[in-house]
Amino acid sequence: MIQQWKPTEKPDSLEIRERMKKIKEKWIQLQRQMRENGQPVIVLIEGWGAAGKGSAIGSLIREIDPRFFQVVSMAGPTEEEQRRPFLYRYFVRIPEAGKFVFYDSGWGDELTKSYAKKEISQAEYELRLKSIERFERQLSDNGYKVLKFFFHISQKEQKKRLDELAADPDTCWRVSEYDRWQNKHYEKCLELFDDYLKVTDFQEIPWRIVDAKDKKWALLQLLEGICAGIEEAPKKPGGSMLENEFEIQEMLPLSQVYLNKSVSEQEYKEELEKLQDRLKKLHYKLYREKIPVILVFEGWDGAGKGGIIKRLAGGLDPRGYEVHPIAAPEPGEKFRHYLWRFWKRLPKTGHVAIFDRSWYGRVMVERIEGFCSAEDWNRAYQEINEFESELFRWGAVIIKFWVQIDKETQLIRFQERENTPEKRWKITPEDWRNREKWDQYEEAVDEMLQKTGTEYAPWHILESVDKRYGRLKALRIVTETLENVLKKQINK
Amino acid sequence: MIQQWKPTEKPDSLEIRERMKKIKEKWIQLQRQMRENGQPVIVLIEGWGAAGKGSAIGSLIREIDPRFFQVVSMAGPTEEEQRRPFLYRYFVRIPEAGKFVFYDSGWGDELTKSYAKKEISQAEYELRLKSIERFERQLSDNGYKVLKFFFHISQKEQKKRLDELAADPDTCWRVSEYDRWQNKHYEKCLELFDDYLKVTDFQEIPWRIVDAKDKKWALLQLLEGICAGIEEAPKKPGGSMLENEFEIQEMLPLSQVYLNKSVSEQEYKEELEKLQDRLKKLHYKLYREKIPVILVFEGWDGAGKGGIIKRLAGGLDPRGYEVHPIAAPEPGEKFRHYLWRFWKRLPKTGHVAIFDRSWYGRVMVERIEGFCSAEDWNRAYQEINEFESELFRWGAVIIKFWVQIDKETQLIRFQERENTPEKRWKITPEDWRNREKWDQYEEAVDEMLQKTGTEYAPWHILESVDKRYGRLKALRIVTETLENVLKKQINK
Repeated sequence: MIQQWKPTEKPDSLEIRERMKKIKEKWIQLQRQMRENGQPVIVLIEGWGAAGKGSAIGSLIREIDPRFFQVVSMAGPTEEEQRRPFLYRYFVRIPEAGKFVFYDSGWGDELTKSYAKKEISQAEYELRLKSIERFERQLSDNGYKVLKFFFHISQKEQKKRLDELAADPDTCWRVSEYDRWQNKHYEKCLELFDDYLKVTDFQEIPWRIVDAKDKKWALLQLLEGICAGIEEAPKKPGGSMLENEFEIQEMLPLSQVYLNKSVSEQEYKEELEKLQDRLKKLHYKLYREKIPVILVFEGWDGAGKGGIIKRLAGGLDPRGYEVHPIAAPEPGEKFRHYLWRFWKRLPKTGHVAIFDRSWYGRVMVERIEGFCSAEDWNRAYQEINEFESELFRWGAVIIKFWVQIDKETQLIRFQERENTPEKRWKITPEDWRNREKWDQYEEAVDEMLQKTGTEYAPWHILESVDKRYGRLKALRIVTETLENVLKKQINK
Repeated sequence: MIQQWKPTEKPDSLEIRERMKKIKEKWIQLQRQMRENGQPVIVLIEGWGAAGKGSAIGSLIREIDPRFFQVVSMAGPTEEEQRRPFLYRYFVRIPEAGKFVFYDSGWGDELTKSYAKKEISQAEYELRLKSIERFERQLSDNGYKVLKFFFHISQKEQKKRLDELAADPDTCWRVSEYDRWQNKHYEKCLELFDDYLKVTDFQEIPWRIVDAKDKKWALLQLLEGICAGIEEAPKKPGGSMLENEFEIQEMLPLSQVYLNKSVSEQEYKEELEKLQDRLKKLHYKLYREKIPVILVFEGWDGAGKGGIIKRLAGGLDPRGYEVHPIAAPEPGEKFRHYLWRFWKRLPKTGHVAIFDRSWYGRVMVERIEGFCSAEDWNRAYQEINEFESELFRWGAVIIKFWVQIDKETQLIRFQERENTPEKRWKITPEDWRNREKWDQYEEAVDEMLQKTGTEYAPWHILESVDKRYGRLKALRIVTETLENVLKKQINK
């Protein structure tokens, strides 16, 4: 892209001044509009080292109220970030509705750099490209404006700037070893950038190349680009039409699940203890092998999720797991991409995250209560499969459970909760309201099970009319899955 | 304390079994009670390496619903944590109302370890002791139950356990170099622990020593200790009576501030540019010297905080600062210690955090609207001085501004906002309601200025009837303060 790209000729300084004045007015007006519409905007600025990205951002934000934007500028991933998926540190920093985030270099720079430096293989490079494509598309589909700029300078210009920076004791620290390396291997890096830009130049999220030789002219191009990008016709409502890309496992509809399964008190006790012991040993090994584990529990109110999680936790070292009870989102969560709050809660490598309810709320409660549009929840199946495949690629073991009971059993449990003082806190009017929508939920759950059970993140039904049966089954599945994973890992 | 301490004789196993059964029932009942009362509980378990802290916590939590507790177990501070004050990583992990947090080793272990290993001086050790005292007292005063246990074993027993752990390939990784070092220098460490326990054995937050030679017996002591601690008479309402410990600068009452100060447009422009340039250079130096900077802006609605922050930000490198607009707390914030959300937003060393409103809400809006008790906000002056002195000790530069206008000026600005479409979003019915309480606020602000202006975190009044005057003054104060700090730093 850069190699074929012809920069517009730089206008004279009078014209720059006039256009700058005009565009700044527009910029201020568009900001207000974005804020009023609750539109979140991501401005990604990639480019060569010393191309002036940082100082352009500096000028840009002088005209914005500091409460409405954030500049994200990151060195290499920190220890904590290294123990999370590649895109984690970018995802957790996306803006909330009505705000701007400027990324001063981002995922493109990180990826091309690690590829250039041969820290990752070509296969990994391509997989990450795919991840980036999905990341950007998901943002855009979920209402984010994503504007991408590449600041371009020539090898000669870059060398000149690096030398100048290095000569001044006040700025020499800004010249990194990588900048020097990049300048020395300019041709190779140019090809890499070019390839990256080509592959990630999406119709609705295109690249804009900025001729960055002159600072004022670069700023003008940037500002004009941002305003043009914001003013473009908004994305078609509903987002992208997504085809399923993943191999899906067949699941029985809930109505055909045979629930009459049980286990004796005696057998339960013995088996539970054995499973917890096995799990304990596995947990240490997972920790040492740095394998992250993600367990998802969904199920009817009163089905006994809490009890299962408790028994499972009983077999884990408390230093290595966290339980995330998921309720209605807090404001900062509601005003961001619906997966944001789950990205934020991802475990570190070697740790276990147990989700008591999860991102599947999108295709259950949000669908049924109308908290998102039909397009939104229809698109979510694929988005969720993508999310989980991202976690799998990172190395996570993902196991998902649906805790199943029948409607009659739920009624008995609700009544028992109401009649037992120490259980009364567990039952709320909302539980009763949800119960009235049982059939709608059953339809939604069936569709969810049909569309999101993948080989790398399968669903398991826990028949829990007999709670003991459900608990043992959960522990057995977790234990066996982890044993298999570790076996494979060690044979590698 | 340990050296004089006489362990209770271990009961026979029948008695242990019976007492265990009884205390477990009590434990379950108390948990419910804590949850219903919205009482947060912190259980800190310190002790010798291999004393069985982790496994005791493991047993303990089997009886708790995993949604209501968190186990915090930390290795040495991460990179991110090292760039924050000593207590940061503990403070950000405190529980919310109705939940438990178990610290598997905590601040005591970290402090004694770094002192034993001579990583910190005696003076620093003593300062940190003081910080810990304040930390625990503040938690307790703000409604937290803090229960502290020390797991004690003999040198011989420790050696035996370490050898056993090391011999098993499944557990050998759990024996750290420090454990071995501790065992070798047992006598010295015992004295250190003893000293630490003595100094931090507060009347309302006492230490409980657990004879940890036998695991079941240790667990029983722990459970009985926790239940006893929870059942103790609650802290006297209102918390500790606190005397001011800090040197306070005298401040004029707001009514005596002379507001008729202004500056010409011409002078403003020239001076602003100069100050921003100076600031820019300073910012790089701060970054290199790793000095954190905390700027606090409080002031009347419509006084122009936003405009000042914008000009200030214009002189900073966007990669090195963050603006935190502080509104009403979100639920997870409201249900914790009121300073929690500010601890979470502390800058990294070398970064600048700008607070647009701040922790002073405690003694202004929370006082006036009755969101906390009179004891709470009265105590807060001292708590805030402690908080800021903690930040200062860490190395932060703290500058606080009150942006001052008169009541008439506010009216004009409110009306202007209502009459200008692009400013209308800035004015809300709440602004008008607050305006009616002007006199109450003025009283609260005067008291705040009198009680929290310290040498290390002074207040400055910005006379902002002429906005330009206020902006220049803010930039001048920040610039000069930072220049002085850097001069001192470099002369060190």
